[in-house]
Amino acid sequence: MKVSETEIIVRYCETDQMGIVHHSNYPVWFEVGRTDFLRKLGLKYSDMEKQGVMLPVVSLNCKFINPARYEDVIIVRTRLGEVGCVRLTFDYEIMLKDGLNPIVLGETTHAWTDRNLKPLSIKKKMPGLYAFLKSLEHENK
Amino acid sequence: MKVSETEIIVRYCETDQMGIVHHSNYPVWFEVGRTDFLRKLGLKYSDMEKQGVMLPVVSLNCKFINPARYEDVIIVRTRLGEVGCVRLTFDYEIMLKDGLNPIVLGETTHAWTDRNLKPLSIKKKMPGLYAFLKSLEHENK
Amino acid sequence: MKVSETEIIVRYCETDQMGIVHHSNYPVWFEVGRTDFLRKLGLKYSDMEKQGVMLPVVSLNCKFINPARYEDVIIVRTRLGEVGCVRLTFDYEIMLKDGLNPIVLGETTHAWTDRNLKPLSIKKKMPGLYAFLKSLEHENK
Amino acid sequence: MKVSETEIIVRYCETDQMGIVHHSNYPVWFEVGRTDFLRKLGLKYSDMEKQGVMLPVVSLNCKFINPARYEDVIIVRTRLGEVGCVRLTFDYEIMLKDGLNPIVLGETTHAWTDRNLKPLSIKKKMPGLYAFLKSLEHENK
Repeated sequence: MKVSETEIIVRYCETDQMGIVHHSNYPVWFEVGRTDFLRKLGLKYSDMEKQGVMLPVVSLNCKFINPARYEDVIIVRTRLGEVGCVRLTFDYEIMLKDGLNPIVLGETTHAWTDRNLKPLSIKKKMPGLYAFLKSLEHENK
Repeated sequence: MKVSETEIIVRYCETDQMGIVHHSNYPVWFEVGRTDFLRKLGLKYSDMEKQGVMLPVVSLNCKFINPARYEDVIIVRTRLGEVGCVRLTFDYEIMLKDGLNPIVLGETTHAWTDRNLKPLSIKKKMPGLYAFLKSLEHENK
Repeated sequence: MKVSETEIIVRYCETDQMGIVHHSNYPVWFEVGRTDFLRKLGLKYSDMEKQGVMLPVVSLNCKFINPARYEDVIIVRTRLGEVGCVRLTFDYEIMLKDGLNPIVLGETTHAWTDRNLKPLSIKKKMPGLYAFLKSLEHENK
Repeated sequence: MKVSETEIIVRYCETDQMGIVHHSNYPVWFEVGRTDFLRKLGLKYSDMEKQGVMLPVVSLNCKFINPARYEDVIIVRTRLGEVGCVRLTFDYEIMLKDGLNPIVLGETTHAWTDRNLKPLSIKKKMPGLYAFLKSLEHENK
């Protein structure tokens, strides 16, 4: 799978007094896209956490290009970026379901950590998962 | 202490496209008021949790009377309600700092539980805390 | 339509440090259910707002019975309550998709207002909408 | 004023199931810092909006370095970046009040627009405001 598409309908509480979606919601939608991306690969993120592997965000970049509005039907296109032993990146494109123009573009970088947020090597901790993600990274290019 | 007053300045992201504070923020402000109420009594809620005592909300009632707007300076007036062995209630009055009219009135009921959210008797688990809260309840009447 | 069922997957950011969904998300999910209820009836809430009719929440009651967790698939069951000239109520039942036990029960009351949040009679302003909602109310009993 | 310092106490609902502040809250705290920065200069952002000048975010970059936790007392250090006719940047440093290590570093870029989110030149629309901000930019270097 190169790209996962996740549908979101804009919630009223996600709007602000400009009448558009408040920008702080897009990192949340990225996360929805990321969870869905992994789920479609058969990887439940909540199961990973139960096995003591966390994936906190260490950096976030977004460009806000067009506004989204209440009740808009949105698509989050999530793609795996670089897969390393200690880091993982995803990138995102958010657009209207019936539109061509991007609304938001973004990228997140994550660190693999244990329950205490200490960095770990996923290659050592879960070699199968690492090899699997690494194979997807190559497919992407 | 009968009433704790906590000041909050309305955040942009708390507004919605009606140009007013979205109603889902008021339960959050009640929580801010509640944390501050306990802190002023010398009780850090985060310390209680470290000792294995949780206080999840089991019911919530709100009346939304007047709107609040971006940058308004708000006061949350928090008061202890009933103190039981297994339950605790708080009530809240939210108003403008420079106003007389209430914005929101609310009430929350909480259960004392352990880390696994199993109900417990605070009277047995922490008799000192129970007696202290009970004394405040009486003072309130 | 007596009951509208809306599916929601719990987002990571909706959890708190107890490891469960923070209670302030349930009013947001009620709103998602309400919007979906109206949409299924052919009523876009965003269109109503464009015609100058607002429906702010004037009261909210919730009972939190069981916790929901990250990635849980949730159903919001939304039902129309009382339909008046100036007020409207909805009630909600939130449960796991694959579960029998309720997670949260709730009720919201709304006022019909104009753009400036002044109360209005929907029976006068939009007699067709009023008659339609009134017919659903009767069907419900 | 080179740097504005704004105090924030972490709210319970801002934590997630990792037991730390969810990353989507930091853009909200940046906004709190930005509003406070402007307020200290005598510029109420809500007044600017009433005069038809909006300042939507067009890009956001964050680095998450250390976690913040419930009840932590946080300082947002906000600084004006570049001041242009059509764009404005701010940068942010978030740290514990009693700490030396950064929690989050960030930067936001904003476009000056009218009420319909059409770009405008602030130098033309509000020359006094532009000159004032420009003078602060120089002071910063």
